[in-house]
Amino acid sequence: MQALPGFRDYFPEECARRNYVTSVWRDVARRYGFVEYDAPILESLDLYAKKNSGGEILSQLFQFTDKGGREVALRPEMTPSLARMIAARERHYRKPMKWFCVAPFFRYEKQQKGRLREFWQFNADIVGEIGVAADAELIAMAIDILRALGLGSGDVVVRLSNRHAWLDFLRQKTGSEEGATEFLAVIDKLEREAPEETEKKLAAYGCTLEEVRAFIASGGGEAFSSLLDSLEARGMRAFVEVDLTIVRGLAYYSGNVFEVFDRSRKMRALAGGGRYDNLLSQLSGGAVDLPAVGFGMGDVVLGNFIETNAQAKQRMEEEIARAGGIDLFIVVADASHGGHATMLLQRLRDEGWRVDMPAGEMKVGKQFQMAEMLGARYAIVIGSEWPTLKVKTLALRQEEAVSQEDLVGWLQRAWTDADPLNK
Amino acid sequence: MQALPGFRDYFPEECARRNYVTSVWRDVARRYGFVEYDAPILESLDLYAKKNSGGEILSQLFQFTDKGGREVALRPEMTPSLARMIAARERHYRKPMKWFCVAPFFRYEKQQKGRLREFWQFNADIVGEIGVAADAELIAMAIDILRALGLGSGDVVVRLSNRHAWLDFLRQKTGSEEGATEFLAVIDKLEREAPEETEKKLAAYGCTLEEVRAFIASGGGEAFSSLLDSLEARGMRAFVEVDLTIVRGLAYYSGNVFEVFDRSRKMRALAGGGRYDNLLSQLSGGAVDLPAVGFGMGDVVLGNFIETNAQAKQRMEEEIARAGGIDLFIVVADASHGGHATMLLQRLRDEGWRVDMPAGEMKVGKQFQMAEMLGARYAIVIGSEWPTLKVKTLALRQEEAVSQEDLVGWLQRAWTDADPLNK
Repeated sequence: MQALPGFRDYFPEECARRNYVTSVWRDVARRYGFVEYDAPILESLDLYAKKNSGGEILSQLFQFTDKGGREVALRPEMTPSLARMIAARERHYRKPMKWFCVAPFFRYEKQQKGRLREFWQFNADIVGEIGVAADAELIAMAIDILRALGLGSGDVVVRLSNRHAWLDFLRQKTGSEEGATEFLAVIDKLEREAPEETEKKLAAYGCTLEEVRAFIASGGGEAFSSLLDSLEARGMRAFVEVDLTIVRGLAYYSGNVFEVFDRSRKMRALAGGGRYDNLLSQLSGGAVDLPAVGFGMGDVVLGNFIETNAQAKQRMEEEIARAGGIDLFIVVADASHGGHATMLLQRLRDEGWRVDMPAGEMKVGKQFQMAEMLGARYAIVIGSEWPTLKVKTLALRQEEAVSQEDLVGWLQRAWTDADPLNK
Repeated sequence: MQALPGFRDYFPEECARRNYVTSVWRDVARRYGFVEYDAPILESLDLYAKKNSGGEILSQLFQFTDKGGREVALRPEMTPSLARMIAARERHYRKPMKWFCVAPFFRYEKQQKGRLREFWQFNADIVGEIGVAADAELIAMAIDILRALGLGSGDVVVRLSNRHAWLDFLRQKTGSEEGATEFLAVIDKLEREAPEETEKKLAAYGCTLEEVRAFIASGGGEAFSSLLDSLEARGMRAFVEVDLTIVRGLAYYSGNVFEVFDRSRKMRALAGGGRYDNLLSQLSGGAVDLPAVGFGMGDVVLGNFIETNAQAKQRMEEEIARAGGIDLFIVVADASHGGHATMLLQRLRDEGWRVDMPAGEMKVGKQFQMAEMLGARYAIVIGSEWPTLKVKTLALRQEEAVSQEDLVGWLQRAWTDADPLNK
C-alpha cells in the first residue's frame, strides 16, 4: 500500500521541512501586516467552471458527484474561493485588505519534475487598492520570503512585466484590443516556439517578430519606474528584472504580472502573480468590484530549489534542528522513584519545557542513548540520591548535582547562559 | 455562491480561532516529545475498505473514481494512513514512536450540532510501547491540552474504561469471547436503550442487566490502578473517572479506552481514543506487529465548547489579540517623504517587527484610524522634520520625537519596558 501517485506521505523529517517553509511564509506575511484566511478544500464545481482561468485548470480538476448529488471538486487554486468570500463580507473589512493563506491544492497533472497532484501553496492578495504601491508590497514580500529562506539576488530573480504594455502595443498595431488573449498566448510562447511559426502568427496582428523583439528590448520604458523606485527604496532592486516576455498563463491578469525564477533557469517558476482588477467583479457576478493584486508560491519547486542551494539548505537544517526535538530527558536510574520521575516530568512540562522519559524500565545506558537521539540538551538523572538529582549537559558531558527544588531555576539559568535566544 | 453544506469559510476572525486551537495542540504535543507527521488528504479507497473500523465511516466516505480510473476517497480518519506509513518505514524509528498530526478530515454526515463534513482533528499515537505508561502519557496530554485552553476538572472529565475488563466478564459468563463485538454493542447502548430491550439481549450471553450494572458499579477494581497512579502523580486525578459504560464505537480497540466530555454532558465527546494493539498488524497484512495507543480530538465540538465556557473563551480572545495585528504603523504626514517611509518600513520589518503603512496618499487622521484598527502599538510619523520622527504610543496618546537612526533602539526599549514577554 502506497500513497496515490503525485501525493506525499509526510514522515516526521518531511513534515519538519514542510513546516519550516510554511512557518517562513506565515512569519513574513505577518511582518507585512497580512492576516490569514482559509476556505474549504472541497468546493462546488460551478466555482471553477464559471471562471475564465483557462481550460488547463478545468481539465485537471479532481471532480465528482457527492452523496447528495452535488457536482464538487477539490480546489485547484484559491482565487475563486477568495472571490466568493470577499463578495459575501467585504463590507466588514477596511480596504486595502491584505490577506494570505497557506493551504493544500489539488490538480490532476501529468507526473513531472516540480509538479505533484497535491501541493501546498502560499497565496497573498491585496484587495481594494488600485495603486502600484500594492504591487510593490507583494513583490517585496515574495522577495523577503526568499531572503528569509537564505536566498539572495544571485540565486533568484523576479521577472516583471505588464499586460497593459502589450495591449497598448497591440492597439498601436491593429487599432483595437481584439484577439488580445490569442496575441498574449503568442508572446507567452515566444521563447519556446520556432521563430517562423511565431512570425506567421504575428502577421495576423500586422506586426513582425522584429518589432516584438524591439519592444521587449525597450524594457517598457517608464511604465515600471514607480514600482522599481519602491523596490529600490527597500534595497531589493537587484532582485528584479523587467522582462516583457512574461505574460502569465491565466486569462484574468490585467496589469503588472511577475514570475520568480532561479537564476540558472533550471526550474519552473518559484512563484507568480499579478494584478486582476476585473476578476472579483466577474466572479461575483458584479456583487463586488474591487481592484486586486496577488501571487502564489508553491512548496514543490521551492522545496526542490532549497535542496540544490547550499546556503538555503543549511539554514533549513539548522532551523529544523533548533525547532525540533526535546529539551530535557529524565533518566530513571532507580525504578522505585518512577512516581517522583512522573511528578518531575509534569512540573517541567508545566514550565513549558519539552520533556520526555522512558515509558517502561530500561537500562540507564539505553536511556542516555534515547536522550541524545531525541535531541535533549540535558539529562536529569533521578535515583537513590533523591531529592538530589544529577543534571548532565549532554553535549559537554558535564554533570552537576542539583536538588529537585532548585531544578527549574538551575535549568533556566543554564539554558539562558548557553544561548540567550533559546527561550 | 456559498461553501458546500458542512464546509466552512475561514474569514480572518475564524481562521484566528482555528489557528489558536491548532497551535495549542502543537505546543502541548511538542512539550510531550511528540513529532508531527502528515499524510495525503486523498487516499486509495482500499485503505478504508480493508479496515474493520465499521460500516458507519465507510458509509460516510467522499469517494469517487479519479481521472486515472483509481477508486479514491477523502480521508475520514488518520489511522489507516498512519498504519501504511509505519509499515513502510518503522525500522527507521526508535520505539516508542510518539507521533501527532493536525489535519483536515472529511465525512459525509447528516448535518447536526457538533458534526461538520470537513473538520480539523488532532491525532496523537504512541506506537511500539505495550506498557500502560503510554496510555497514561496520552490521557495526560489530552488533559494538558484542555488545561492549556483554560478548562479545569470542573469543566471536563475523562471517562476511562477497558475492553479487556468486558471481555473477561463475557468469558466468565459464557466461557468464551464469542460474540464479543455484539456484546460490546449492547454495553455501548446501555444508557440509550430501554432496560427491557437490553435485558433481552443480555440473556443471550447468560447474564442479567443487574449483573452488568453491578460490574459497572465495581469500577473495574485494580485494573486501572497503575494508570490512575500515573495521573495522580501528574496532579490530574480529578479529571478522570472510571466508567465502564464506555466501550467506543470502533471495533479495533483492544485495551484501555477513554472519552473526554464536558461535565454537563450537553455535548458530544470532545476527544476519544484507546489501545489498538492488533490493528497495525491487521492493516499492514502482518508486515508490522506493534502495539499502539492513540486518540483524536476534533475542532468542532471543542470550538463550540470554548464558546460556552467563559474562561476558555476569554483566554482564546486574549491570545488571538496578542498574536494578531501589527506592531507599528508608519504615518506619512508629508508625501514627499514617501521614499524615506518605504526605506524605514523595510528596515523595521528586517528587524522582525510587524509593520504597515498606507498604500497611497491618505489624510493623517485616517492614517491614525487605520493604525488603531490594525492593532498597532506605535504610530511612527514621518514628515517635514525628517530625519526626526514622532513616535506616538497609541494606547497612551503619548508622543515623543526620535531621530531615525535611534528609532530601532528606542522601540526595542519601549517594547521591552511595556511588557518583557512581548518579544
